[in-house]
Amino acid sequence: MTNIVVVGLGEMGASLAKILTAQSDNYVVGVDMSEQSLRYALENHLVSATNSRLRDVASQADVIILATPVTSIEKSMQQLATMSLKKSVIITDTGSTKRDIMAVAEQVLTPMNMKFIGGHAMAGTHQSGVTFANENLYRHMTYFLVPSSISESSQLQTVLQPLAAKFMTIDVARHDALMATISDVPHIVAFSLMNAATTQLGPSTMFGQYVAGGFKDTTRIAASEPKLWADVLLSNKEAVLASQTQLRKQLDLFAQAIENNDDDALIALISSARESRENL
Amino acid sequence: MTNIVVVGLGEMGASLAKILTAQSDNYVVGVDMSEQSLRYALENHLVSATNSRLRDVASQADVIILATPVTSIEKSMQQLATMSLKKSVIITDTGSTKRDIMAVAEQVLTPMNMKFIGGHAMAGTHQSGVTFANENLYRHMTYFLVPSSISESSQLQTVLQPLAAKFMTIDVARHDALMATISDVPHIVAFSLMNAATTQLGPSTMFGQYVAGGFKDTTRIAASEPKLWADVLLSNKEAVLASQTQLRKQLDLFAQAIENNDDDALIALISSARESRENL
Repeated sequence: MTNIVVVGLGEMGASLAKILTAQSDNYVVGVDMSEQSLRYALENHLVSATNSRLRDVASQADVIILATPVTSIEKSMQQLATMSLKKSVIITDTGSTKRDIMAVAEQVLTPMNMKFIGGHAMAGTHQSGVTFANENLYRHMTYFLVPSSISESSQLQTVLQPLAAKFMTIDVARHDALMATISDVPHIVAFSLMNAATTQLGPSTMFGQYVAGGFKDTTRIAASEPKLWADVLLSNKEAVLASQTQLRKQLDLFAQAIENNDDDALIALISSARESRENL
Repeated sequence: MTNIVVVGLGEMGASLAKILTAQSDNYVVGVDMSEQSLRYALENHLVSATNSRLRDVASQADVIILATPVTSIEKSMQQLATMSLKKSVIITDTGSTKRDIMAVAEQVLTPMNMKFIGGHAMAGTHQSGVTFANENLYRHMTYFLVPSSISESSQLQTVLQPLAAKFMTIDVARHDALMATISDVPHIVAFSLMNAATTQLGPSTMFGQYVAGGFKDTTRIAASEPKLWADVLLSNKEAVLASQTQLRKQLDLFAQAIENNDDDALIALISSARESRENL
């Protein structure tokens, strides 16, 4: 019997819990601040048991999965470092940026000989909360694993196998640069496009009737959760700023080509973008 | 019997022709440089007749619809100004930017007492060519009409009624500013995101496996046709550059807030974008 503690029953954590609970050799304890979420999780068999306090259940755990926002993950890690846990316990998280989390792990967990492996699945929707638990959320999705200095990821992969995700080990710098470019800056761009449009055209209720599918696609992720994304952007600060500088350079190339009526330069820029997009 | 000449049997023109030909009181003549397109249009009943030269059929026309790329539209207008047309003829176009086209109309058509009404439907897909003629292409779509100094759009609307589009009269400056903000700059952004990603991460075949739906949505329109979009961006130059400056300001607000670790500012920026997107 593997005792698994999942902290945070949002969409990511609740989906993890649901999938792992469905395995007969797992005993999954859900931890959340919301009594309502805990009740929902128990009633819908997303977990085997619930508890509102990590410290009440951590000592029994073989695997602890921290599935809260990044700042709460770091607090939980600091708490765990003060508890007496199983020697073999594996601690992991689901935070979408890894630099700060890995730094905290090396600072507080590694000295206690606690094994930590950072985790980040390229999964999740715009929906949030325990009611969006979905047993297919991770299927065929890339699931990054970021080893710390005393971690070893094959055991964790065995436990997480029922997710049917594509596990991939990656180092922290590469992970965060990748996220900045393929996720964080695209979000900033979508937010900025919406804000620029309302600045120029007034409320979106006024111009919404005119927009075609292109604008809707390009701004779809502008509807993301503000607190969560403020956290993500700040926790990946250096990589985000570096990646945004690269984007600005590309935008400047377009402005320059348009300014100069340079048809050839524009066609070259667009052709390169088109080819990359088609090969994605 | 209304004699309608459609110049340019691409997706937009061929769809228009197909819809209008289906009305028994219309006689639709398709004009295109490609013999193959003309043959296809005739064989598939998209038109009543075809001709490879506008000058052979223009004098009979009650309505002339110029559905070629912007630069060709302008050339056709200059040709029409030298021909003897019906006194009552209405000339319109389907170009996605209107400033240059309206300027040419005032310069060459108005002095000849020829009625011109600019047209632009918020319809069309990434597909191109006569084989994509679609009788539902315009259904429920906004179709902008831009009056020139001697035009009157109710007659044209009567002819175009079978499209089932939502017709909306708009002035040229407002039209082009709107397009810059909701279409042109979003395209530039999508192109730039792709180019910035490949600059930082290498070919998209290398990082494509990691990207989630957000990146795919945001860059979908980066797969657009290079020559066409170079034309669009250059023909709407002033409005595009002005709108891109507004976007850059919004991007800078994000960079600044991240630089300053300003959680509150970030949440405010994202909340405003989210609300606008949800009300779209």
